[in-house]
Amino acid sequence: MGSRRPEIPDIVVGRLPIYLRALSRMIQEDKEFTSSHELAERLGISSAQIRKDLSHFGEFGKQGTGYNIAYLHDQIRHILRVDHEWPTAVVGIGDLGHAVANYRGFQARGFRVAALFDADPEKIGEQVAGLPVLAISRLQDEVQRQGIRVAMIATPADQAQVVANLLVQVGVRAILNYAPITLTVPPGVYVQYIDPAAHLQHMTFYLDP
Amino acid sequence: MGSRRPEIPDIVVGRLPIYLRALSRMIQEDKEFTSSHELAERLGISSAQIRKDLSHFGEFGKQGTGYNIAYLHDQIRHILRVDHEWPTAVVGIGDLGHAVANYRGFQARGFRVAALFDADPEKIGEQVAGLPVLAISRLQDEVQRQGIRVAMIATPADQAQVVANLLVQVGVRAILNYAPITLTVPPGVYVQYIDPAAHLQHMTFYLDP
Repeated sequence: MGSRRPEIPDIVVGRLPIYLRALSRMIQEDKEFTSSHELAERLGISSAQIRKDLSHFGEFGKQGTGYNIAYLHDQIRHILRVDHEWPTAVVGIGDLGHAVANYRGFQARGFRVAALFDADPEKIGEQVAGLPVLAISRLQDEVQRQGIRVAMIATPADQAQVVANLLVQVGVRAILNYAPITLTVPPGVYVQYIDPAAHLQHMTFYLDP
Repeated sequence: MGSRRPEIPDIVVGRLPIYLRALSRMIQEDKEFTSSHELAERLGISSAQIRKDLSHFGEFGKQGTGYNIAYLHDQIRHILRVDHEWPTAVVGIGDLGHAVANYRGFQARGFRVAALFDADPEKIGEQVAGLPVLAISRLQDEVQRQGIRVAMIATPADQAQVVANLLVQVGVRAILNYAPITLTVPPGVYVQYIDPAAHLQHMTFYLDP
């Protein structure tokens, strides 16, 4: 990852959404200012790391008063390019695809589920989350019509690579893969994984055997 | 996170499952040795970081030959305590819970979906992934009977905190939360989040606006 904006380590970029999530939460709590120490405490990341990460993008805090939460939130939204909404496709409308299409956590964070696709003829035309399920053959038209560049794959593992190839072919550049398989994509296409087992393993480290 | 084994930064612990995933993949590819440079290339993490992370746990590589993949894989499984299987509960058997219960990516990585719970009387007794859906009132008995200490929450957001409280009360110590809400848990209980919007934001950073 990271052929563009090469000066920022990808691992730093990956922490920005976590900071943004914490800042959103603070806004909900009606807080106005925060500090790298408070963020550190909430996130389990050192305050020095947080200051260093943010310093890649400018001067956001003031000695003494810390960070203005709303301002920092806006700036990170801008840096992550989620200050506008990305129309997003979901491919694979089984149980998981249904759940993804209905997920409430996208809208406030820069994404709108805008098109649903499935290979199963029985599912075509079904309404899910207010959208019709479309045939895969409609992918190109629909992606171009809506300017979709972000997609989520919720197919079985053995179909995920084929779907990824199709998505890349029609112009999708960012793929979130829910299937438990590693995808191969050409340079300039970004892939992230929903990997629940990795999260579980992170926690079992701390549990007594 | 991290009241136990305080000497290891939690952010390092969080990368171990990523290394383990990459090593598993290399085993599937019949590779025998790897290097921090090869891992770095695959993962977008610097080789220096990888070496530093692993050095917290011992000496795994040899100058010249690099890491023996199977050995390093075994060691990390042991460190993460996934060299045995954790019976795992799923609470909330809607679309998402169905998908989680049927997910193929747990078994090889140290977790077995062992009990399913839902609050909806209509769902009780339904068979999902070979298991009966149980009433929430059965939580304590079943968690104790099976020695369950790991759970996943797949309920709607407005029920997730109540479910988390119940899970903690009956002895669960690691919770993976799929609901788009931040949970409050007492010290000694670990929470991780499935946060698809954060993954999408990580990628839109690299896309042209």
